[in-house]
Amino acid sequence: MVTTTADVRPCELAAMTRALELASRGPLGPNPRVGCVLLAADGTALGEGWHRGAGTPHAEVAALADARERGADVRGATAVVTLEPCDHVGRTGPCSLALLAAGVARVVVGVADPNPVAAGGARRLHDAGVEVVTGVLADEGVAALGAWLPAVTRGRPFVTLKLAASLDGRVAAADGSSRWITSDVARRHAHGLRAEVGAIVVGTGTALADDPSLTARTGDGSLVEHQPLRVVVGYRDVPADARLRGPGGELVPLRTHEPERVVAALHAREVRHVLVEGGPTLAAAFVAAGLVDEVHAYVAPVLLGAGPAALGDLGVRSIEDAVRLVPREVHPLGTDVLVVATPEPRSAAHASATSLEER
Amino acid sequence: MVTTTADVRPCELAAMTRALELASRGPLGPNPRVGCVLLAADGTALGEGWHRGAGTPHAEVAALADARERGADVRGATAVVTLEPCDHVGRTGPCSLALLAAGVARVVVGVADPNPVAAGGARRLHDAGVEVVTGVLADEGVAALGAWLPAVTRGRPFVTLKLAASLDGRVAAADGSSRWITSDVARRHAHGLRAEVGAIVVGTGTALADDPSLTARTGDGSLVEHQPLRVVVGYRDVPADARLRGPGGELVPLRTHEPERVVAALHAREVRHVLVEGGPTLAAAFVAAGLVDEVHAYVAPVLLGAGPAALGDLGVRSIEDAVRLVPREVHPLGTDVLVVATPEPRSAAHASATSLEER
Repeated sequence: MVTTTADVRPCELAAMTRALELASRGPLGPNPRVGCVLLAADGTALGEGWHRGAGTPHAEVAALADARERGADVRGATAVVTLEPCDHVGRTGPCSLALLAAGVARVVVGVADPNPVAAGGARRLHDAGVEVVTGVLADEGVAALGAWLPAVTRGRPFVTLKLAASLDGRVAAADGSSRWITSDVARRHAHGLRAEVGAIVVGTGTALADDPSLTARTGDGSLVEHQPLRVVVGYRDVPADARLRGPGGELVPLRTHEPERVVAALHAREVRHVLVEGGPTLAAAFVAAGLVDEVHAYVAPVLLGAGPAALGDLGVRSIEDAVRLVPREVHPLGTDVLVVATPEPRSAAHASATSLEER
Repeated sequence: MVTTTADVRPCELAAMTRALELASRGPLGPNPRVGCVLLAADGTALGEGWHRGAGTPHAEVAALADARERGADVRGATAVVTLEPCDHVGRTGPCSLALLAAGVARVVVGVADPNPVAAGGARRLHDAGVEVVTGVLADEGVAALGAWLPAVTRGRPFVTLKLAASLDGRVAAADGSSRWITSDVARRHAHGLRAEVGAIVVGTGTALADDPSLTARTGDGSLVEHQPLRVVVGYRDVPADARLRGPGGELVPLRTHEPERVVAALHAREVRHVLVEGGPTLAAAFVAAGLVDEVHAYVAPVLLGAGPAALGDLGVRSIEDAVRLVPREVHPLGTDVLVVATPEPRSAAHASATSLEER
């Protein structure tokens, strides 16, 4: 199997860029977003396709169908595909076999498939005499896969913790009122993230105190097409008249306080990206368990001086044990500031140890 | 008195820009930073000067001396000066009279002097037949005067509140340890601000708990030339071996808990810019009293989950009563983010009312 990209032709690189563009048209969800372009020997495109979501054809199969519709002969063609072709019979047949059957002679792959069930397509193609190149525009390919890649690699959803607090770290005033600490622009931004994740998680405390709807909405308040699961963690019941039972994603009560169980349950449902929205106790439990991959902290230029803190007890006693993050992005959003940060690897390990020993 | 800038000559505008540059060479302190350029009728510079600090000649007098040294004849000349010439006998004579005595025919002024004692120079010059233009590059002139202008206008120092907290709003861990939450870059930046202010204020609680030195230091730890007053607010004594009694600015204990008394005492000492560095109780007292003009919030990408909050009780019970700020600048500093924000006018008024009614 060819593993360097030295002998990738310029037209193949261009096709990979196109395939990444096609991939981004697919929905975020349990399946990866993948794009594929079929090239003739002279570099002209014979067909292209992308994966439109679970139960629909994979990108390679869609591209083959497109070529067939165009009346193109794909024998001897090159398939340029953002993710390694699958090798398993899921809701669709293995793409490796489809490409072989079509007579494709060369396959240019962006990112290797980390999914233990689906991987092996490149190997099968290679063993059948197809030329395979992997790792082409791999960084872009990884970025295009988003949360799906770490989720499938590690066997648990990617977890984003959202914090929205005043400049002095309060999520609500002394009387519990919190509408609105952050600006309209920041709230719209947060809804954009909701529209991308598979599940939003809150504790029963937040569900009961705030009666949130946990839906992804547009600026005018209407629901976007994709609605994440609405997961409520804890032992108390969600009232019959709660907004959480209104229009929106499926309500999933999880009777546990263990973040590990929450992510396991959601992984079993093929959720790739989880957004933890609070409250402070649940947020702290996820941080302490080392289960937060990314923090989105909306900091509002507001001073409260009293009221619940953004984060409950982590078991951190001394500054040396602080959970340190690496900021990835800082951007002003209206009057607020969004800090996107990821835990330092060491901190995550430490936090995990803390959660086992001290909690 | 001419009050529009329509008939300002290009060479005068250029001279004002030069005068602003000269002004910035002066020290920050009780006196304003002022620059002056003397122009001949044909626009050539006859002399220039700036104010080098209390007890030294004002910019106009320095510029006249410079012209004299160069052997230039300033009769009929134009004086371009960033701040209205003073009209009072302070540690130096009135600049208005010095300009008149020198035979200056026209004076181009940046900013009118708000100081009730010193103002009136423009009026006296005008009444004596000198052509006076005011408001030339006034915005730049206001910026160059920094904290001095609002301090003198309002009869109290400009107050900057520094907050340095974790992303979840803690200033220290549960055991009180706080070295270091913020990054080296942020701390260096904070020392830069210390080098600009007239006084640093902390409560006795912070003085006793942290044993801070409250000095302005360079990156290598050495003291910069200008050291602000070190003001400790409260009734407890600063121990004899405290760092606050070591090298640095004068130690000023103020036996009060009233922010109003603190700013009055510092105004009496001609302090124009005060930096409130904590702790949470003192910071909250200043915010609640409506005496904070600017907040410098250093937000570190650290999660603590427990420990003292950045700000003590403000008397804010409900979110509607939050002290809302307007962000002016947001910049990453190393791994931290600095948010510079100013209270909304309404909030300041509200906070002030709150402090009278509820505290």
